[in-house]
Amino acid sequence: MLDVFKSVGFLGFDVFGTVVDWRSGVARAAEPFLRKHSLEVDPLQFADEWRSLYQPAMQRVRSGERPWVKLDVLNRENLETVLRRHQVDFGAITGAELRELNTAWEKLDPWPDSVEALRVLKGRFAIGPLSNGHIAGMLNLARFGGLPWDVITGAEIAHNYKPMPQTYLESAAAVGLPPQRVSMVAAHNDDLTAARAAGLRTVFIRRPSEHGPNQITDLNATDNWDVVAESLIEAAELLVGR
Amino acid sequence: MLDVFKSVGFLGFDVFGTVVDWRSGVARAAEPFLRKHSLEVDPLQFADEWRSLYQPAMQRVRSGERPWVKLDVLNRENLETVLRRHQVDFGAITGAELRELNTAWEKLDPWPDSVEALRVLKGRFAIGPLSNGHIAGMLNLARFGGLPWDVITGAEIAHNYKPMPQTYLESAAAVGLPPQRVSMVAAHNDDLTAARAAGLRTVFIRRPSEHGPNQITDLNATDNWDVVAESLIEAAELLVGR
Repeated sequence: MLDVFKSVGFLGFDVFGTVVDWRSGVARAAEPFLRKHSLEVDPLQFADEWRSLYQPAMQRVRSGERPWVKLDVLNRENLETVLRRHQVDFGAITGAELRELNTAWEKLDPWPDSVEALRVLKGRFAIGPLSNGHIAGMLNLARFGGLPWDVITGAEIAHNYKPMPQTYLESAAAVGLPPQRVSMVAAHNDDLTAARAAGLRTVFIRRPSEHGPNQITDLNATDNWDVVAESLIEAAELLVGR
Repeated sequence: MLDVFKSVGFLGFDVFGTVVDWRSGVARAAEPFLRKHSLEVDPLQFADEWRSLYQPAMQRVRSGERPWVKLDVLNRENLETVLRRHQVDFGAITGAELRELNTAWEKLDPWPDSVEALRVLKGRFAIGPLSNGHIAGMLNLARFGGLPWDVITGAEIAHNYKPMPQTYLESAAAVGLPPQRVSMVAAHNDDLTAARAAGLRTVFIRRPSEHGPNQITDLNATDNWDVVAESLIEAAELLVGR
């Protein structure tokens, strides 16, 4: 094992994009809704549109413009924004339908290597989400996909969203470790930049199709992260051996 | 399954005494320390003395007399109180020794039926501590004893200690469920009284030797809890079937 990982006790994972495939999962959940309400938008495009509102919505919390709210609240607001843009007739949609569609983010398939890799990593490290998702969403996602987390950390623990430093620092404090004994595992360079600035170790996982076949971001590591791996399984091999 | 459990999605467990045997575990961890420092006190009695300060210490937080602190802070203060009562020479004890002894509460054996019962229950319900222990302590205890929790709720989520209602209510909110879709599982009648008052379902587990052979409290259910079981395995049979 790499020397800097010998004292690491907890691996905190980005989840959306790193562990699970949100794009195909959200599209799958949206497809029957879009069909039923005759919305002529490709489900994958719908997923991309919904996701595109994710960072701006969190930014209003990070900036202090609005108080802390959980991610499911932001997702629901963003869903209504996207539907309005497509001139949906809200009179024809029930609240129950919107609530159900909003749980799309809790029914996402893990990438094919995720569950096996997490099981290997769990043999050596405590593992958990260090995600912007809320606790209930992370719990439901774990039970949906069989993700064997030990604990759930992240935004709801800190009442602020990554990449604010307190999200990393309060997650480390919650598991009882100093930042240098925690590693962030993420497919996003900006997440790792912020984690490193907060004192955490860093593992980059290449997920070049998170945003579909035309992805242009995070195709490669853009800094000298402690570990750079082609997949979560490769990271497990590097960190634990097989 | 009992009708009232059909809509239950989360079982929140008391841990110390209900899932793990704190008395023998703390005594086991204390024994070499007591021997090294020539403290003539039976390790089981030492465990009882340490534990006897647990409720009064939490009460100062519940009453608002002191701000929220995690349980490991209270345990550490209580440890020093017990040692002072035995006229310990603190000059002969290192800080590292005290820190190590304080982790006794994170190295407790599960009762013999706990792990199997939790695995069965996890097949039907999301499961997690709804304990006064802090998140890191619950995490370390789970990894020590192989407790397959989905999530960790409890006092640190609510920043207050059971039986304050917010500890139950904020734990339910964290897992995304209304109180009536959460059940408390505990070996202590007062815990269940408070959980029921907060709107949760209630499962009583008889643990008649938690406090050793002369236990006089919680030998039996003192109210008509939704489930009363002789063991966690019996509760799993009643709630899930085998």
